[in-house]
Amino acid sequence: MNASSRTRVAVNGYGVIGKRVADAVVRQEDMELAGVSDISADWRSRIVTQKGYRLYGAASEHAEAMQNAGLAVAGTLEDLLGAADVVVDCTPKRVAAKNVDLYRQKGVKFIVQGGEKHAVTGHSFVAEASYKDALGRDSTRVVSCNTTSIVRTLTALKHAGLLRRARGTLLRRATDPWESHLGGIMNTLVPEPEIPSHQGPDAQSVDPALDVVTMAVKVPETLAHLHYWAVQLTRAADKEEILDAFRSSPRIALIRMADGLTAINTVKELMADLGRPHDNLYEVALWADMLKVEGDELFYAYMVDNQAIVIPETIDAIRALAGHVQDPHESIATTNAALGIGLLTEALGGR
Amino acid sequence: MNASSRTRVAVNGYGVIGKRVADAVVRQEDMELAGVSDISADWRSRIVTQKGYRLYGAASEHAEAMQNAGLAVAGTLEDLLGAADVVVDCTPKRVAAKNVDLYRQKGVKFIVQGGEKHAVTGHSFVAEASYKDALGRDSTRVVSCNTTSIVRTLTALKHAGLLRRARGTLLRRATDPWESHLGGIMNTLVPEPEIPSHQGPDAQSVDPALDVVTMAVKVPETLAHLHYWAVQLTRAADKEEILDAFRSSPRIALIRMADGLTAINTVKELMADLGRPHDNLYEVALWADMLKVEGDELFYAYMVDNQAIVIPETIDAIRALAGHVQDPHESIATTNAALGIGLLTEALGGR
Repeated sequence: MNASSRTRVAVNGYGVIGKRVADAVVRQEDMELAGVSDISADWRSRIVTQKGYRLYGAASEHAEAMQNAGLAVAGTLEDLLGAADVVVDCTPKRVAAKNVDLYRQKGVKFIVQGGEKHAVTGHSFVAEASYKDALGRDSTRVVSCNTTSIVRTLTALKHAGLLRRARGTLLRRATDPWESHLGGIMNTLVPEPEIPSHQGPDAQSVDPALDVVTMAVKVPETLAHLHYWAVQLTRAADKEEILDAFRSSPRIALIRMADGLTAINTVKELMADLGRPHDNLYEVALWADMLKVEGDELFYAYMVDNQAIVIPETIDAIRALAGHVQDPHESIATTNAALGIGLLTEALGGR
Repeated sequence: MNASSRTRVAVNGYGVIGKRVADAVVRQEDMELAGVSDISADWRSRIVTQKGYRLYGAASEHAEAMQNAGLAVAGTLEDLLGAADVVVDCTPKRVAAKNVDLYRQKGVKFIVQGGEKHAVTGHSFVAEASYKDALGRDSTRVVSCNTTSIVRTLTALKHAGLLRRARGTLLRRATDPWESHLGGIMNTLVPEPEIPSHQGPDAQSVDPALDVVTMAVKVPETLAHLHYWAVQLTRAADKEEILDAFRSSPRIALIRMADGLTAINTVKELMADLGRPHDNLYEVALWADMLKVEGDELFYAYMVDNQAIVIPETIDAIRALAGHVQDPHESIATTNAALGIGLLTEALGGR
């Protein structure tokens, strides 16, 4: 593929998600990173230029502050949008909604993250469920980490004709590791005040046919979310059938207690040992040996790396909007290869 | 009631449960605390004598060590058993099983805690479900904190004719507060390796008719357990009906997010404000406003004080073995009044 046919991607907001998206974009042969826009003029933006990424100020005052801090600034967000085909908005929750007018005015396709409402783009994205609907669209919304994991796993069961309804309890990490100084780790548990929690309805924004109810609680750790599910199947099934359904998704990794992966910290250590940037776990890590089938009921638990799981989805979303890859499986396989997603399954001793 | 007709209660093991049982026994008009047996000769046993409780060494070497530490020792466990009608074994998990022969040999009725197997006594106890079966027996087993909460809540639904089956996710506190120095608070989540976890089958040891499955995970806090439930009802119901069912149990307290009880630490603070010893929460604290009914499905969450919830059950178990109170409701009401259990509901603004 020659340079001119690559999709030029802008990343607006270089935080937890934005930095991972930028790193993932530069690993794709059919994409190039047009640049990164942010508001910070401290260490966070120095890393951007050190990596060789073009840095832009979100507005002129930010570009000036960056310049005063000695950073090489390529211009403002508006300049960046002029050099991009797709912008991935990774700004904090509810900020993206205000950026959308600018993106539209500049004629740039855009992706927002799960903190925004479905209505902002009118389309919600998980590659294995809604890639085709997104083909050639002007915009989409990559749903949140929790919702992504729910749609991946339930879609796998649905495709196997096994899903009737799913009821989940979600243990949410208290805060992101890098923001731990702002508080969050407490000696308590904080239930979300409403049942159902928003993740169930949010999964239905991707696939309205899913019969799913979630309850959520904030727990005092920073590593990842952990979901527990009780699923009513369409019929009695055996365990191997269920595992095969999950194996059919290239973004569900079957892990085992018996293999020493006894808690979420050990799984993160494995990601570090695999040499993944930021120890990213892109997959849903689902305990195969813990999983239990009783007649037509299924019980299981899995881990969700809230910082990483949406990264491959975002890459696929870029490709869907760009429209040059029609087949979801092709995009997913390309993204997975570039991010080394298959290597985890290999490290786990196969599927 | 004159002194001679009171049930003489021995407490063997003055740990997290034993100390609370002893304090609860002395508040009962129909019981007297014969004494406390332990192995420690440090601050823990000094508290025993300071409270005016008779202190015994579990064996002669413990009694000697206590004496050497300047403590007033009344004798050994064997002496204590000679002065008791019922002994409550509060020794660590699996130790009680070895004490049982001694209790039988001395002709003393005995109660073991939930860490022991059902077979040790052949009877498992939760007052609202199995008081009558325990009447006049030689022994029973007060089930664990988690199991107690499960049986209380599901029995309430069952008595209202509403329970079909229940599926729960249990968040277990990492360690008890007083043992925090031994480790336990970690920046991770540790799933129990097996689904179902043992609490579901354990609830069936009290009531074999319960259709219940549990999954459990250890979380990094010390205050209490938190359970999330998805229950299949026998029919569609409205929320008030469900709340009425829970209200029918005098040991379920309906709490409200909207009343400022937004997390488990705030509930513990309320217990302290009520002046309860050790901030004990004897009730299942169930969030009424969070509870949701959707057709014939019910979703709710509640808090379980693992140190306190079995204390009223243990008092009732003593009374059931002694056999002088036939009616479970009478025993429960007596225990509750002595422990101030009604006052919580009052503080919550009524039922």
